[in-house]
Amino acid sequence: MNYKMGGMNYSFADSIQDLRTSEIRDLMSLAARPDVISFAGGMPNNHYFPLDEVDRIMAELPLDMKQKAFQYGPTPGLPFLIDAVKDYLGSKGLPVDENEILITTGSLQAINIIAKAFVDPGDVIITENPCFIGAISAFRSYRADIRPVEMDEEGIIPDKLEQAIDEAGDRLKFIYLTPFFHNPAGTLYSQDRKQYIMDLVKNRNIVLLEDDAYGELWFDEDAKKRVKPMKAILGDDSKVCYVGSFSKIFGPGMRLGWMLVPRGIYQKCELIKQSMDACSPSFTQVLAHQFVTSGKLYDYIDDVRKKYRQSRDIMVDSLKRYMPEEIEWQIPQGGFYIWFKMPGDIDATEVLKPCLNAGAVFVIGKTFDPDGVKNNCFRLSYSNAPVDKIDEGIRIIADNIRAFL
Amino acid sequence: MNYKMGGMNYSFADSIQDLRTSEIRDLMSLAARPDVISFAGGMPNNHYFPLDEVDRIMAELPLDMKQKAFQYGPTPGLPFLIDAVKDYLGSKGLPVDENEILITTGSLQAINIIAKAFVDPGDVIITENPCFIGAISAFRSYRADIRPVEMDEEGIIPDKLEQAIDEAGDRLKFIYLTPFFHNPAGTLYSQDRKQYIMDLVKNRNIVLLEDDAYGELWFDEDAKKRVKPMKAILGDDSKVCYVGSFSKIFGPGMRLGWMLVPRGIYQKCELIKQSMDACSPSFTQVLAHQFVTSGKLYDYIDDVRKKYRQSRDIMVDSLKRYMPEEIEWQIPQGGFYIWFKMPGDIDATEVLKPCLNAGAVFVIGKTFDPDGVKNNCFRLSYSNAPVDKIDEGIRIIADNIRAFL
Repeated sequence: MNYKMGGMNYSFADSIQDLRTSEIRDLMSLAARPDVISFAGGMPNNHYFPLDEVDRIMAELPLDMKQKAFQYGPTPGLPFLIDAVKDYLGSKGLPVDENEILITTGSLQAINIIAKAFVDPGDVIITENPCFIGAISAFRSYRADIRPVEMDEEGIIPDKLEQAIDEAGDRLKFIYLTPFFHNPAGTLYSQDRKQYIMDLVKNRNIVLLEDDAYGELWFDEDAKKRVKPMKAILGDDSKVCYVGSFSKIFGPGMRLGWMLVPRGIYQKCELIKQSMDACSPSFTQVLAHQFVTSGKLYDYIDDVRKKYRQSRDIMVDSLKRYMPEEIEWQIPQGGFYIWFKMPGDIDATEVLKPCLNAGAVFVIGKTFDPDGVKNNCFRLSYSNAPVDKIDEGIRIIADNIRAFL
Repeated sequence: MNYKMGGMNYSFADSIQDLRTSEIRDLMSLAARPDVISFAGGMPNNHYFPLDEVDRIMAELPLDMKQKAFQYGPTPGLPFLIDAVKDYLGSKGLPVDENEILITTGSLQAINIIAKAFVDPGDVIITENPCFIGAISAFRSYRADIRPVEMDEEGIIPDKLEQAIDEAGDRLKFIYLTPFFHNPAGTLYSQDRKQYIMDLVKNRNIVLLEDDAYGELWFDEDAKKRVKPMKAILGDDSKVCYVGSFSKIFGPGMRLGWMLVPRGIYQKCELIKQSMDACSPSFTQVLAHQFVTSGKLYDYIDDVRKKYRQSRDIMVDSLKRYMPEEIEWQIPQGGFYIWFKMPGDIDATEVLKPCLNAGAVFVIGKTFDPDGVKNNCFRLSYSNAPVDKIDEGIRIIADNIRAFL
């Protein structure tokens, strides 16, 4: 049956987008098999959520706040939550008074809205390669021409970035970067690389979409110093669109994120948001407000930082023990992920198959390549893996990689 | 500052969309003034939400469900909620086994996703006139060519609809209708008109987007018989995209709706949803699941039906007492709204001004006109007005209209 659909205009059978989606779905369902040790899910640990705190919030919620939780709210977000997020972002040095906050249904919606605000079909977005898959799918859904630029251990590679900017010319709409504990690369941008990016976007008058979903999850003092957002350093006259999320510091099930953007961009984004879902869930906005203003958010972040660092340590110990030297990886200083590069002729999909049979799962590299090609890499996530199974899972993966060397 | 934005390509200063948005915002802020009696908000009554029931659900929620509430869920929705919605929609006779359910962030997101799936710029969507403003803004955001068709008291007018279909030709993507207690018109489609629509879309092979946000809120047995969805009557081989919502039967703050659509449409919609917000809020999905499967949903619907009918009765009594005969309106058999037509030369905005000063507010007609022009109409909502203030508010509006006759 022909439905005369339009919009994205890609066929279901053979587009990269769809292959990726079905691959991810297969992985997700495998990852759900109880006997498989999963390093696949890019999600917080099921056991670390602040359940008791939310029980307490619910029990103490006054009647008028309960009613607000059930009712429609204003499109930009419930005013008291906007104020709380403003204080929270202000404490990171972000220019909250000179920009506007829009509460979104997760930070993916913020990324999607900004893409819709900027992109006409064929417009260029420069991303890192690898890149957060949600951003890839949002950009692609507006038929952006995504130009991925390689990363090294300090961040996106300067001369390759400038080449991409020159090639894009007038069609460049913005650069999308995840400078803090990148998904999937795990990278924390160096101070030098951040400075380079800030000079570049300032001198060349380029819009930067700065995705800070993981910045709170730093594991050491050096990392803590380096997670200051570029929007905070650049100050109030920058064209940086800053997006963040409650997903890693409260719970993804709340579906709450935000953008902090210049007023001219905000106005259009608010209209787009209004036509997308009218407002983000009031129910979870009320919970998030109580969580932030009680100060419990900060205690909780302190707590999960330690827990994720512990998982990172266990994984790193196992990797040092088992992983063949030919495989390149870095110790992440925060976040959820370690990214692995295998010799160029090894296909991660082929490695995954015996690993799955042996009981361990990860996400293959091409999932995160906007071109859907580069596949000698893979991502391990330590965030939601059972702590007592990490060592066994790493051993399985290392053993199975060895057969390909 | 020029941000080189694209996407919707309308200027902020003078587009219909923006005028409408700012007008609505003004009205919303006026409606919030405590001394003003508001018939403006198209929302459930703050005092009717099932607060105790949700307290009970939260208190009894097992640990694993709490964890699920905090975590990401699958893009289509949490499987147990999909099953519950399937049972619920199946009980209305909808062909749930032959179609797919996608849980969305409110039914507006379902409408938005379907628009994105079908519409390339310039494609035609036929709507009723007046039309739900959320749908107008969603359709417009994809640069659809919206062709509004007038309604009478039985629904959209057949010969005008056929004329619009003929004029649209190949560019027609779908017809969007709200057959049950229309927002803002209050109309419940007659059986004849429904049959006409069903024959038309079947014979001419047209996709129908059937919006059933209010169908549960019928006030009498005749209405109860007539709220059966066209998708339920047409059965499994129809090209009807059916959308609905928990907003009026649980709470809009949950931001939960659904679409029930043929598989071929579903696949594309799921991809779009995935790139928009990854998944709808797990937290409220868990609450909704408990609410539906406990059977409390049905008790709650019974209860609010009676309450909204009581408000309708009070408003109708007052209207009979005060409203000048020159003003046309119908007694609604369900839903939230009464729609008023004034003689053609009276501008609702001009009527609103003295009403506001005297302490009553409503939404002017052109808000709901896709062309943003027709303004001799207005909408009163009895759903969220204080019951003991309805009579006074209606007297104020009627008195002020009289000055224009």
